Amino acid sequence: MINAQLKMYVRDYSTPGRIQDAMLYSIEAGGKRVRPILLLATAKAFGASEEKALAVACSLEMIHTYSLIHDDLPAMDDDDLRRGMPTNHRKFDEATAILAGDALLTLSSLIIAEDSHLTDQERVFLIRELSKASGAKGMVGGQMQDMLSENTEVSLEQLENIHRNKTGQLLRFSIIAGAYVGNSTEESLEEMTRMGEALGLIFQIQDDILDVTGDAEVIGKPIGSDEGNAKSTYPKLLGLEGAKRQKERYVQEAQDALRKAGVDQTILSELIDYLSSRDH
Amino acid sequence: MINAQLKMYVRDYSTPGRIQDAMLYSIEAGGKRVRPILLLATAKAFGASEEKALAVACSLEMIHTYSLIHDDLPAMDDDDLRRGMPTNHRKFDEATAILAGDALLTLSSLIIAEDSHLTDQERVFLIRELSKASGAKGMVGGQMQDMLSENTEVSLEQLENIHRNKTGQLLRFSIIAGAYVGNSTEESLEEMTRMGEALGLIFQIQDDILDVTGDAEVIGKPIGSDEGNAKSTYPKLLGLEGAKRQKERYVQEAQDALRKAGVDQTILSELIDYLSSRDH
Repeated sequence: MINAQLKMYVRDYSTPGRIQDAMLYSIEAGGKRVRPILLLATAKAFGASEEKALAVACSLEMIHTYSLIHDDLPAMDDDDLRRGMPTNHRKFDEATAILAGDALLTLSSLIIAEDSHLTDQERVFLIRELSKASGAKGMVGGQMQDMLSENTEVSLEQLENIHRNKTGQLLRFSIIAGAYVGNSTEESLEEMTRMGEALGLIFQIQDDILDVTGDAEVIGKPIGSDEGNAKSTYPKLLGLEGAKRQKERYVQEAQDALRKAGVDQTILSELIDYLSSRDH
Repeated sequence: MINAQLKMYVRDYSTPGRIQDAMLYSIEAGGKRVRPILLLATAKAFGASEEKALAVACSLEMIHTYSLIHDDLPAMDDDDLRRGMPTNHRKFDEATAILAGDALLTLSSLIIAEDSHLTDQERVFLIRELSKASGAKGMVGGQMQDMLSENTEVSLEQLENIHRNKTGQLLRFSIIAGAYVGNSTEESLEEMTRMGEALGLIFQIQDDILDVTGDAEVIGKPIGSDEGNAKSTYPKLLGLEGAKRQKERYVQEAQDALRKAGVDQTILSELIDYLSSRDH
């Protein structure tokens, strides 16, 4: 459902040609769709209809996709492959990849602003929170911090701060947005925010662990690339076992927050376990 | 007023450090502020308070600024200078310039979504129209078309189509947004849209003319750079005199639309003349 809707949006809001091809290429490159799935699952747990959540779920995935396109650029991480396929700038060229990213970022606001299942108040809330989560004090700021921290000694506190911004805030948004469109109470929203924050760190720690223990074939990128990039990671700072224990603490916190939020826990509880033990 | 507000927004919505420095660098690099001035002047012509128009005027200028940062990148126009100063990626580096552009684009939605002088309905309208004007069917799409058309034969119709998207839609938005926050009638909004479209073409034709006849010192970039880039321009397609006549036709159309819109014409009429005869 998410994949179909994403493609429809890109086709509707761009003109056939190179920019559309480049947008579709990265949108169709797949990925786990973790963020939109979390958003839809949270909305469902709060009893919202899928219709209320689908546009913002796609908007969130567009933000994630644009950030991958730009992060892969030669001036940034300089990656040739993403999920086993050529990165956008390798498939097209750098100029096209920059513009396709810009276009997806711009489109992410437009589809929320135009979604007929949301009220104006809901649209404004969702655009505002998503912009905060993805901007200079969120994802983009975290990416900048991350690049500046390469080849430097980083404390655990600094590392967590980077991850809270770079990957945490979008994951947190997926939970908050789902609860919001499900008319969550203030108290529930607070617990879900705590869960979303823990989930962001679980996700990142598992990413770091997979870079040490994972299977390159399954992950779709070489193992040990963090080592090569001189990147700070949880296993480097805490050891592999320490990283796993840290992850387990956040799993407990996420499950605890979920229980206290007082919603149907079935799917979300499973998703926490899945994200903490995923092999890619 | 625009300059002070732009700086305040960037400071408020980013964390001190490299990303903020890079955002401020390009925001403070100046420029004529044509788009926000047109927006404020139109709002004034419709009797709106400056307060109603200032956030969206700054949002629009942020979009314009991000597009310049990305367009200047080596993979795009590869410019070292902008307004006589090092371009963002020359002052910082490419990665920082990409991220600073992304951050400004993201911030442009946020400041409209958070502006307390606008209703939710107004915020949604402005975010939607600005996203349309600057996305894959607007500015970004036009930039892609422009790059694809380099070194090819382009008809006058194709050239105008590129400019309508690449530069025209943001200028058009400045007029529409100003009229909208001034509670324009449907009929007035239609005439103002026609004026905005003509104004976009006037602006572009004058840009092309200045590239032939201008003073490099005044413009802040070398004369004849379009020639070197093998770019299609109005003077190339119509001759210098033909380009001037074409511009004059659009000036007449813009003034005519302005008269029919039935608003205070004083400032806007002068702005049309200024933009058509500007020397930089």
